[in-house]
Amino acid sequence: MTNIKSTQFVKTIDHTNLKPDATKTDIRTLCAQARQFNFAAVCVNPWHVAYAVQELAECTVAVAVVVGFPLGATTSSVKVFEAGEAVQSGAREIDLVINVAALKEREIHYIADEIKRVRAVVEGMMLKVILETGLLELEEKKLAAQIAADSGANILKTSTGFFGGATVEDVQLLKQMAPTLGVKASGGIRTAEFALQLLAAGATRLGTSSACQIMAELDNK
Amino acid sequence: MTNIKSTQFVKTIDHTNLKPDATKTDIRTLCAQARQFNFAAVCVNPWHVAYAVQELAECTVAVAVVVGFPLGATTSSVKVFEAGEAVQSGAREIDLVINVAALKEREIHYIADEIKRVRAVVEGMMLKVILETGLLELEEKKLAAQIAADSGANILKTSTGFFGGATVEDVQLLKQMAPTLGVKASGGIRTAEFALQLLAAGATRLGTSSACQIMAELDNK
Repeated sequence: MTNIKSTQFVKTIDHTNLKPDATKTDIRTLCAQARQFNFAAVCVNPWHVAYAVQELAECTVAVAVVVGFPLGATTSSVKVFEAGEAVQSGAREIDLVINVAALKEREIHYIADEIKRVRAVVEGMMLKVILETGLLELEEKKLAAQIAADSGANILKTSTGFFGGATVEDVQLLKQMAPTLGVKASGGIRTAEFALQLLAAGATRLGTSSACQIMAELDNK
Repeated sequence: MTNIKSTQFVKTIDHTNLKPDATKTDIRTLCAQARQFNFAAVCVNPWHVAYAVQELAECTVAVAVVVGFPLGATTSSVKVFEAGEAVQSGAREIDLVINVAALKEREIHYIADEIKRVRAVVEGMMLKVILETGLLELEEKKLAAQIAADSGANILKTSTGFFGGATVEDVQLLKQMAPTLGVKASGGIRTAEFALQLLAAGATRLGTSSACQIMAELDNK
């Protein structure tokens, strides 16, 4: 593996299944694979949190939950409620979608307040804020990164995967905007080559539903 | 206009903008157009409900809100909270996404309970249940229609638009499954011809973001 030990690489992976029709069987498989490879986390929808927590009991793989996903266009109260409930169910990482429309209107206080309110109910947990870079202009990406960093995010995350995906340039930009935070690249990561490019650009986490294929690719190198 | 008066046609339209980056300006335009044509409703994300209600004050156009949209994969508690808050903010119609994964696993009681819990907090409002037909097998479509009908839905709705859209066959099926309920066709409705086909098949509502183009098309016939 190029430039990164496989023990380090696996701990960058959020092994992801956010399909609306993902069954318990699918989530069981996701968890078993995450346990086998010792990935950082599985990333699932709220409905699957309790089951994934049970499947990953006594193991270092965290359960990450998406909140306000994928549109980010629900209210702050709903996001706070959803995040709080997920943490009660055992989620240790929260992938929160920013309110993109509010960002477009420069409602900076609203966005900051929303992130802080979610931060407050997930105290001690890893908070990733999804900026949805595919919908943002350069200045908006910078602004979103600044607001999220100032409001308690641990990790800036590029995308939901519904409106474009991660790019090397966006990862570099987010790293530059918030050098002390992590960066999660997500959306369209399907090959080992692209995964390694994103890590080289400064990503500390990779959200992908192709993690097993990527591991197989790396094994064959 | 073929087989339907234009005064009837406009009252089948849910004028829809569910884009994550839809601004207040976009929603103001949506509401103004809905008021101009006297559509049945505007359909918006929860964050926009209060603003749309304000824009449509003293007018017969309803504000419809999506709940659990578009994945339907959050918990029942979150859906209940989201729906209740939206009604408090003035939404009069609720477009609730079913838990597709639970349907795949035949968790019939869970799905029915979820719809009934939402029904209970939106008493007197129009409840549309989105079955997401594009992800379902024929037997699952029938089962979902039956559960929704038995749990208090007023209208069975085909799709979120994220995983396939409405078809004439699906509208016919839903009408057949629940003859006393309405049917909302949604997803991929961009022409007058298709809109009229769906109405002929039994649809009573059409969810579309192309309503103005469709009206222009009908005007030119």
